[in-house]
Amino acid sequence: MKTIQFPNRSEWSTLLQRPALDNTSLEATVKKVLDEVKERGDEAVQQYTKQFDGVELKAIKTEANEFAEATNLLTAELKEAIQLAAKNIEAFHGKQLSAVEIIETMPGVQCWRKSVGIEKVGLYIPGGTAPLFSTILMLGIPAKLAGCGEIILCSPPNKEGKLHPAILYAAQLAGITNVFKVGGVQAIGAMAYGTSTISKVYKIFGPGNQYVTCAKQLIQKDGVAIDMPAGPSEVCVLADASANAAFVAADLLSQAEHGTDSQVLLVTTDNSFVEKVQQELDTQLAVLPRKDLAAKALENSTAIVVKHIEEAIDLVNEYAAEHLIIACENDEAIAAKIINAGSIFLGNYSPESVGDYASGTNHTLPTNGYARAYSGVSVDSFVKKITYQKLSRDGLHRIGRAVELMATAEGLDAHKNAVTVRLIEN
Amino acid sequence: MKTIQFPNRSEWSTLLQRPALDNTSLEATVKKVLDEVKERGDEAVQQYTKQFDGVELKAIKTEANEFAEATNLLTAELKEAIQLAAKNIEAFHGKQLSAVEIIETMPGVQCWRKSVGIEKVGLYIPGGTAPLFSTILMLGIPAKLAGCGEIILCSPPNKEGKLHPAILYAAQLAGITNVFKVGGVQAIGAMAYGTSTISKVYKIFGPGNQYVTCAKQLIQKDGVAIDMPAGPSEVCVLADASANAAFVAADLLSQAEHGTDSQVLLVTTDNSFVEKVQQELDTQLAVLPRKDLAAKALENSTAIVVKHIEEAIDLVNEYAAEHLIIACENDEAIAAKIINAGSIFLGNYSPESVGDYASGTNHTLPTNGYARAYSGVSVDSFVKKITYQKLSRDGLHRIGRAVELMATAEGLDAHKNAVTVRLIEN
Repeated sequence: MKTIQFPNRSEWSTLLQRPALDNTSLEATVKKVLDEVKERGDEAVQQYTKQFDGVELKAIKTEANEFAEATNLLTAELKEAIQLAAKNIEAFHGKQLSAVEIIETMPGVQCWRKSVGIEKVGLYIPGGTAPLFSTILMLGIPAKLAGCGEIILCSPPNKEGKLHPAILYAAQLAGITNVFKVGGVQAIGAMAYGTSTISKVYKIFGPGNQYVTCAKQLIQKDGVAIDMPAGPSEVCVLADASANAAFVAADLLSQAEHGTDSQVLLVTTDNSFVEKVQQELDTQLAVLPRKDLAAKALENSTAIVVKHIEEAIDLVNEYAAEHLIIACENDEAIAAKIINAGSIFLGNYSPESVGDYASGTNHTLPTNGYARAYSGVSVDSFVKKITYQKLSRDGLHRIGRAVELMATAEGLDAHKNAVTVRLIEN
Repeated sequence: MKTIQFPNRSEWSTLLQRPALDNTSLEATVKKVLDEVKERGDEAVQQYTKQFDGVELKAIKTEANEFAEATNLLTAELKEAIQLAAKNIEAFHGKQLSAVEIIETMPGVQCWRKSVGIEKVGLYIPGGTAPLFSTILMLGIPAKLAGCGEIILCSPPNKEGKLHPAILYAAQLAGITNVFKVGGVQAIGAMAYGTSTISKVYKIFGPGNQYVTCAKQLIQKDGVAIDMPAGPSEVCVLADASANAAFVAADLLSQAEHGTDSQVLLVTTDNSFVEKVQQELDTQLAVLPRKDLAAKALENSTAIVVKHIEEAIDLVNEYAAEHLIIACENDEAIAAKIINAGSIFLGNYSPESVGDYASGTNHTLPTNGYARAYSGVSVDSFVKKITYQKLSRDGLHRIGRAVELMATAEGLDAHKNAVTVRLIEN
């Protein structure tokens, strides 16, 4: 970890720069796969599964007995842990549903807004060494709460043509039974365009490698919505002298182990604290299974020492972290001044990993500075908020003249006329 | 208007097809302007304003005296109409703000969510024959309510280097004082990348022609968010025998006058009603100032007659209209079954134009079928919802084991360790 002491504000943007993300070079490859899936459906999906996942499947849809088998393979304590996480996620997201309230903006002019679940949504869960079953809870539970009619899930099969049992268990727990053993660009294509087996959906959620990310960007052009733009995961820890160096080092490492492109930033007002964290990093890193990965990510990471907490807050707001840990004495007062962040962890006992798994908040969050304009996934992400208005004859007579005048001033006479024909009615 | 009677469901997707939107051919042109603005800032903005708007401006920022002058140029009754609309929009959108609620998902595990206004937003208002000052209210009022720190507005100047007085009046009423006389791609570029005069913003809102639409698509790749994908405006009227043919014809025309690519669809269970509407269309069209435009849009429009109201509802849901007028006896029962629409107008006295201007709902809505997955603009569009969690030592001890188990099962040991170091603390 590089340490930068008391940088000038003019240096901040350079110091906080993230790696440039450019998928342009992949576009042609990805587009070809998408086009093939669009044209040839299941046949193309099967072909790419053979090519990229190295397995030939008779059926891509998961059957009831596979769910049952998966449940038996997991330990009781892991299942209980997943259940606890699901319960907390449901408790937090359940409060995001809002009742319809009719607002009479003028007598006889009633307006309201109703959240309606997106009819068909698709969730993508990557395969690889770490089976991200926690992401299934983070996407599936809000989707169910939102009232989405059809929820499908795609994830790449292993060489034996199977999905990790924890993936199937989490899916079943979240109430998702349409689970397909399809991964990569072919999964995104299948959900975006539909095949005989996989339904076309209106919005696609979930993480993925750079090919999946590129595919999600491309299908947007065909009118399919996505959860949010993607980028490497990141954590920023804002610490003062009250922080615990061992805790902070552990938090930095938990982000660093994601991959060499992970972004890890420590901001502190206490110069000596950085040295303590550095020592803890060395000790903790030595025993980590993924230490090579984490060590590489740490090489690209930075500790910044600033003079005052107010300066630290400005710096953190400029960075706009996906995860922000505030390990400071006045954590709540500082949190109140944060305007750019995905999710905030307050105090010494709120490591990022509790939010990653089980506190109840969502872990699908805006990274790469997107936190300036985007929110993390919530029930909102799975609904459309439709607006409604109903005017009485009286209400239209009250508001009509204003509409006529504004429409005329905008040069839209037919807009005016739609009111006029109703006002002059006998 | 073509009439289709009792089509098979298998024909629906063809019947409801919208024109393909493809900006690919413009991309190179648009990208060049964006790149120039990115590199040369104000100088490039001035150059393109001269080239595209035919005017050389000394200063692009609107001064206080110009607002005062604009206010004097408008009639008192138009100003009152705009004030009435602003009041209703504020009343409706004001209810979209939500209070923070702390949810204890487990004892000692507190989670909450707070809406924080996006720090810098940019609004774009097109120029041309119809000055869309109503859109300023629709974007500016929610932006203010959301608590956005900096709100800037760009709109192209006319040949005299001025903005329409109603634009300046509406901006001032909405509390927007950073108004720039810049239009087209150069305006989108200036707000996306910043110039010496115009601030870089994090999210850009507002309608525009195909060049502006293409520019908004392109700047997304550089991490700037946009309100929603764009497409031609559209209305669908669902009418039964209780509907008034004159009213419905006026509603269809109010959409048709937007442009030749406007989408107009009538769905009814009453065959004879279509003929009545057709007669009314002929009568009303003859006296419209924009009749040539509207007549052309009507040529591409369709009336579909179906047998039952349930079939009509399915059809309307498949279309996913930006604006849906339900001119039926059981309007509320039918509205409850609509799952895809931007904004819904119930009954005989709720023409689309009331929502376009003054009922209080937003008129920036998802078109082109995007209503399946997207919502219209609201206060939500101008905020990020940041999540927070704070655990007590006790809370962490309660949830810690579950997090450790899940992290281990995902192969993320450093995630586990961030909890473990805290649990074993003396």
